Amino acid sequence: MPTIDLNADLGEGFGAWRMGDDDAMLGLVTSANVACGFHAGDPDIMARCFALARERGVAIGAHVSFPDLAGFGRRRIPYSPAEIERLVAYQIGAAQALADYCGHRLTHVKCHGALANIAESEAEIARAVARATRAVDRDLILLAIARSAQVLAAEEAGLAVAREAFADRAYTDEGRLTPRGLPGAVIEDAERAAERVLAMLEAQALISESGALLPTPIDSICVHGDTPHAVAVTRRLRGALERAGFRLASFTAAEA
Amino acid sequence: MPTIDLNADLGEGFGAWRMGDDDAMLGLVTSANVACGFHAGDPDIMARCFALARERGVAIGAHVSFPDLAGFGRRRIPYSPAEIERLVAYQIGAAQALADYCGHRLTHVKCHGALANIAESEAEIARAVARATRAVDRDLILLAIARSAQVLAAEEAGLAVAREAFADRAYTDEGRLTPRGLPGAVIEDAERAAERVLAMLEAQALISESGALLPTPIDSICVHGDTPHAVAVTRRLRGALERAGFRLASFTAAEA
Amino acid sequence: MPTIDLNADLGEGFGAWRMGDDDAMLGLVTSANVACGFHAGDPDIMARCFALARERGVAIGAHVSFPDLAGFGRRRIPYSPAEIERLVAYQIGAAQALADYCGHRLTHVKCHGALANIAESEAEIARAVARATRAVDRDLILLAIARSAQVLAAEEAGLAVAREAFADRAYTDEGRLTPRGLPGAVIEDAERAAERVLAMLEAQALISESGALLPTPIDSICVHGDTPHAVAVTRRLRGALERAGFRLASFTAAEA
Amino acid sequence: MPTIDLNADLGEGFGAWRMGDDDAMLGLVTSANVACGFHAGDPDIMARCFALARERGVAIGAHVSFPDLAGFGRRRIPYSPAEIERLVAYQIGAAQALADYCGHRLTHVKCHGALANIAESEAEIARAVARATRAVDRDLILLAIARSAQVLAAEEAGLAVAREAFADRAYTDEGRLTPRGLPGAVIEDAERAAERVLAMLEAQALISESGALLPTPIDSICVHGDTPHAVAVTRRLRGALERAGFRLASFTAAEA
Repeated sequence: MPTIDLNADLGEGFGAWRMGDDDAMLGLVTSANVACGFHAGDPDIMARCFALARERGVAIGAHVSFPDLAGFGRRRIPYSPAEIERLVAYQIGAAQALADYCGHRLTHVKCHGALANIAESEAEIARAVARATRAVDRDLILLAIARSAQVLAAEEAGLAVAREAFADRAYTDEGRLTPRGLPGAVIEDAERAAERVLAMLEAQALISESGALLPTPIDSICVHGDTPHAVAVTRRLRGALERAGFRLASFTAAEA
Repeated sequence: MPTIDLNADLGEGFGAWRMGDDDAMLGLVTSANVACGFHAGDPDIMARCFALARERGVAIGAHVSFPDLAGFGRRRIPYSPAEIERLVAYQIGAAQALADYCGHRLTHVKCHGALANIAESEAEIARAVARATRAVDRDLILLAIARSAQVLAAEEAGLAVAREAFADRAYTDEGRLTPRGLPGAVIEDAERAAERVLAMLEAQALISESGALLPTPIDSICVHGDTPHAVAVTRRLRGALERAGFRLASFTAAEA
Repeated sequence: MPTIDLNADLGEGFGAWRMGDDDAMLGLVTSANVACGFHAGDPDIMARCFALARERGVAIGAHVSFPDLAGFGRRRIPYSPAEIERLVAYQIGAAQALADYCGHRLTHVKCHGALANIAESEAEIARAVARATRAVDRDLILLAIARSAQVLAAEEAGLAVAREAFADRAYTDEGRLTPRGLPGAVIEDAERAAERVLAMLEAQALISESGALLPTPIDSICVHGDTPHAVAVTRRLRGALERAGFRLASFTAAEA
Repeated sequence: MPTIDLNADLGEGFGAWRMGDDDAMLGLVTSANVACGFHAGDPDIMARCFALARERGVAIGAHVSFPDLAGFGRRRIPYSPAEIERLVAYQIGAAQALADYCGHRLTHVKCHGALANIAESEAEIARAVARATRAVDRDLILLAIARSAQVLAAEEAGLAVAREAFADRAYTDEGRLTPRGLPGAVIEDAERAAERVLAMLEAQALISESGALLPTPIDSICVHGDTPHAVAVTRRLRGALERAGFRLASFTAAEA
């Protein structure tokens, strides 16, 4: 029975503000990437997410980013690779400590927003993230965009890597995410998203908008938690995966 | 040959701002309490401090505080004990990760500013700090104000504790620090500070302004790094301790 | 035909985060108190609120607070009266400039959260807010909690004052807000809230939970914008006021 | 008797941190550009600077920048021109209010750091700054880098403009500042700096490293306040200007 992980970015509130429905999503996904206070999240929100994830048996990761609450980590702020190493190490450590505090265990690291965009294609930045992760804990898995510079950098660094495909984002023929501004970039129809995910898993390839197959192992499907229909879309996708014979489980379990 | 630790609060810059002379102080002290980004410090400053401490053989600790850059952690912000646990865990984890990144090892935790003032006398807050520390790593030593609620809380939590006396701050007959506003609260004369430290170590007691002896083991002497004469005062104190037959070494080494 | 103002606290998002439905509320209220970046709000959110208020003919004020994004301005942070003067002046100026930028005009100032709670009963703090307001612009109206220290401080400072009663918060017999934690503190039933408001306007008095009448002019009714039913409650209250023969208009217009 | 203004960037501390010697510099310059809390500065530091400037008869301006305390405003953060307009308006308003509070009057606006670098050459950004300034107060003078896009944008917007030359920074043949990293970019010798300033004022031109003359009116000389020798260099330059027959006075006075 094939296994697949479903991951979402959670804990994206800050102070009195909330974004998305963490509680509902933690009932559906198998891995949660939790904001570490740099683009969103604070110690209380992180702890709440980790505690709930533990109860639900959901694996947890540090969702690392540029320090940019005002821009939600979506803006490219000019940092050198060495500075990025330190930013990433800081966030992983903070997340590990709060995971320990909650009786759970941090098992992976994923890049958020602008940092993810850059690390997708710039080898030097991807390597900085991998180096920082390895320096903090060699057993952490890097959850990387499939076919990105992150995958290579993680392998180079000797880190285990999990490759993710996006359920609701279109791909170019180069295997990059179609930029959000462009038409068709976000797949809003839940049925179509589910069909496409099954096709990609079947083909072990990303499928571009034009139908090109871009081969890659796929260890995880990323769903978004912050859109109005996130919960409904995720529930439908989960159902479709189960009906297609997939067992939903964290890639962490698969690695172990 | 008796051993004594000399500790200072370092890494207290932020971004382009500096406070005190970390480089000079790291040549004199045996333990450095490094700000974790909440009242001061950022990942680059932390990493620089940790790397330099490693070179110089100086033990490092997380100097944890309220999140208050604007107030340098000196203002009591109303946090519940549970919130304080999470703030403290977050900071310890961040510091551990950056210490690992720098090839050094975090060995202790110390409270800064308003958090230290409160944890000195309020058992509930002192216990929150101890619980958070233990949850992250049972091997961390709590560097506590001698005769404070922190000492009891650390012992209760099963943590090793190091007790510090202040080289340049006067004590009341109750063993509390004389508030900074009052005359004589800060001992500016280096000779007098050194003499008093030797007398306290000899007596194994804090000595109040009125001359009262308040018995306590003393594992470390705290010197300040942010005053204009900090380096000169610390150099003189170190010399006086060595002449009096003390070996200067981190309490970490003593615990080991 | 008697006139009454309906005010709400708006612009309480930050960066990517939102709180409440500003657009809907700006179609219902006659005065908007807009966060100035200290507890919520940023230049873009402020400008959007001001521009929309201008289109809808809604009067605007600066909703000033402690600098505390993490705590949404709800925590008492120890500031001296002189520091509060400068915090308040800064925020008023920022709001005035953005109002000018949007072709609108700032006409009032209101305290938010912990600052409001303190200025309600502590004369020294209330005076600091009034002094800062007057120093920036003598023509600004202070929107004050009816029967609070703020009213006296504004009058002392020679500022025009508008007195507000809360639509959905219970009062003690001393005319203070029943603390949020206590049962009955928040009136969730829209009909009951509307009836109580009409009774208070009729009596020109606050009405406590026990039914005591606490005489005061009432120039404005404060409704909350951040609760799930805020828009529905406000719409109902507005309807009830209109049916009872009130003309809804900003106190600014009344003052002019 | 020819008149010249001497301007410096002051108020660049934050909370407990200081940068440069504001008190000494305010005894030497005729215009102070004061940080507005975005890259440095806070309401207390701003008020202290404004009050002291008033005592000393020094003109004051808002030193506006990107919101980036961690990067001291030196990093280009991707903001649209419309966002920059609102950031700039916000800061000018805050500064005006605190100037009023201190009994002084804000007379100019200057860009800091990365915002200045961009506005030097990018017309769209320069226009955003000019538009925001005019929207807040048409009487404000834009203190612009001589021969930059800022000068044109200010003139287009109908704002008075003062053109500054740098006392201690080398120019390329295009009239741009030689980037700080390059050799000779910063002129550390006070005598040479003074001679060059006199030559530029005489020629009414910037003088490049290669000796090229780039004609421009020069209304102000910018000195740095944050280097170790800032006060000594400024004192020497002031002396040299006075001996050469210049009367030192704010361009504000000249405009009036």
